[in-house]
Amino acid sequence: MSVISSMSLKLGVCQIAVSADKVFNIATARAALMEASANEATLAMLPECWNSPYSVKCFPEYAECVPKVGDTLEQMSEEKNPSYKMVSEVAKETNMWVIGGSIPERESDGKLYNTCLVFNPDGKVVAKHRKVHLFDIDVQRDDGHFKFKESDSLTAGDDITVVDTPWGGIGIAICYDIRFPELAICMRQKGCNMIAYPGAFNMITGPPHWELLQRARAVDNQVFVITCSPARDTSENAGYKAWGHSSIINPWGEVVEKASHEPANIYADLDLKECTVMRQNVPCWKQKRDDLYTVQGSKSKS
Amino acid sequence: MSVISSMSLKLGVCQIAVSADKVFNIATARAALMEASANEATLAMLPECWNSPYSVKCFPEYAECVPKVGDTLEQMSEEKNPSYKMVSEVAKETNMWVIGGSIPERESDGKLYNTCLVFNPDGKVVAKHRKVHLFDIDVQRDDGHFKFKESDSLTAGDDITVVDTPWGGIGIAICYDIRFPELAICMRQKGCNMIAYPGAFNMITGPPHWELLQRARAVDNQVFVITCSPARDTSENAGYKAWGHSSIINPWGEVVEKASHEPANIYADLDLKECTVMRQNVPCWKQKRDDLYTVQGSKSKS
Repeated sequence: MSVISSMSLKLGVCQIAVSADKVFNIATARAALMEASANEATLAMLPECWNSPYSVKCFPEYAECVPKVGDTLEQMSEEKNPSYKMVSEVAKETNMWVIGGSIPERESDGKLYNTCLVFNPDGKVVAKHRKVHLFDIDVQRDDGHFKFKESDSLTAGDDITVVDTPWGGIGIAICYDIRFPELAICMRQKGCNMIAYPGAFNMITGPPHWELLQRARAVDNQVFVITCSPARDTSENAGYKAWGHSSIINPWGEVVEKASHEPANIYADLDLKECTVMRQNVPCWKQKRDDLYTVQGSKSKS
Repeated sequence: MSVISSMSLKLGVCQIAVSADKVFNIATARAALMEASANEATLAMLPECWNSPYSVKCFPEYAECVPKVGDTLEQMSEEKNPSYKMVSEVAKETNMWVIGGSIPERESDGKLYNTCLVFNPDGKVVAKHRKVHLFDIDVQRDDGHFKFKESDSLTAGDDITVVDTPWGGIGIAICYDIRFPELAICMRQKGCNMIAYPGAFNMITGPPHWELLQRARAVDNQVFVITCSPARDTSENAGYKAWGHSSIINPWGEVVEKASHEPANIYADLDLKECTVMRQNVPCWKQKRDDLYTVQGSKSKS
């Protein structure tokens, strides 16, 4: 269980445009993080898959080996870890916490993962989450058809991730992970006040489900839910069209701030007292019926 | 696991006005059920606490001992079970399935419960659910204050309830039970295509949470969610003001039909194929990570 040393924070969510040019993407992400810092964010967040187009064909090409938990800037290299090295640098330079969205990770055995690192204001890696639920769906509806199969190139992670911060625990999960209420419950059990989901929903499931799932996870678990999507590629030859709509949701389930589909940073001042108040007002976590049902997380890392 | 013998049904949800006059309430409920049958409903549903004002002081006064699972109309009496005897009669007379909302139940030991019975078209009691999460909340917000403490007069039930019907399993839970995602997951594990929540949300938590929770339970569990509230008492000296807004939600999380706060029956033709299609399109129940988390229901009745 985290010790809370600060009850408030300014959050900056960086909904950047992601192109086919990795160097350009890294520069875009850097600029958005610097803008968040200039706007006095103490915690910033990048989108899912921000250094690469979101495509199973691109993942192997854009993948990097990523620093380990505990690694500092000095242990990262421009050659091997250019994307997350940039994030470490900015975190350190701006004295900001950064939830580093996700990038395709290449493990030494060659396996690829969809991986989020979290950095503290020293630029040190303090948590790593590999997406645990791969995005394999095939939706046929009157309003459209959408198919994606992440498992064609990615491997799923094996850990539930909650990271200690000055604001208590922050649960980290990625995009499709949000469809699994059990995972959010396990993160809350480990003591979090916030769940961050870098995510790139699509044009078919985004409209009906993206905000709904965020608000539901927030209310059920009485936590803030923060999400960061890439901006939508609206060009004619676009590959994956992200729904966008990065959001900041409070524990009461209200949308505090929300982007459209355009590139933009959004900001909110968050007061953790809102978690405490909701947990007192509607004490359902004390009213759970452990004699009737249990939710058990079987692995964990922090 | 239920055997499905029919893939479609017409559902009628009876959002009736509930007064302080029990005899009048029974007549109102009867009329609404008869209207549902006249509109060719094959399954009808009554609200939470439809024979009594929703108040801890009223529960003991309006409570009845209720028939047991397996009881037929002949085993009910006008003296002891007037409320549910009426429902049994109507179910039998109209050849309709009825989810009997809930009434305050008095057990032989004197304990009171918030209890839903389900009736088949023979008028036989096929399931009984006692609300398992008592509604004890004390909400202080800028937009209002709301306090209720069901446990002042009620005892919580001890069973998870899924009833076999021609349309597969229907999970039964009551109002505040909807705040507990674990319960819905356990009902889905037991094999249901629909979850029915008779419920009387209030004017403070109704607007932000009532529809959200219904849609979330539907999408997460890929089931229809159907709710039935009493109509709102808009009189000046009203006690509990129900939010109303009884709803019918499909597995995609769309609101198929919704009442306002006025007394009204709402109807929808439901096609169970929608469950199958969503479960194929977004196969998250096959993608759950049993190695990372488990949800276990420890008791059950059907």
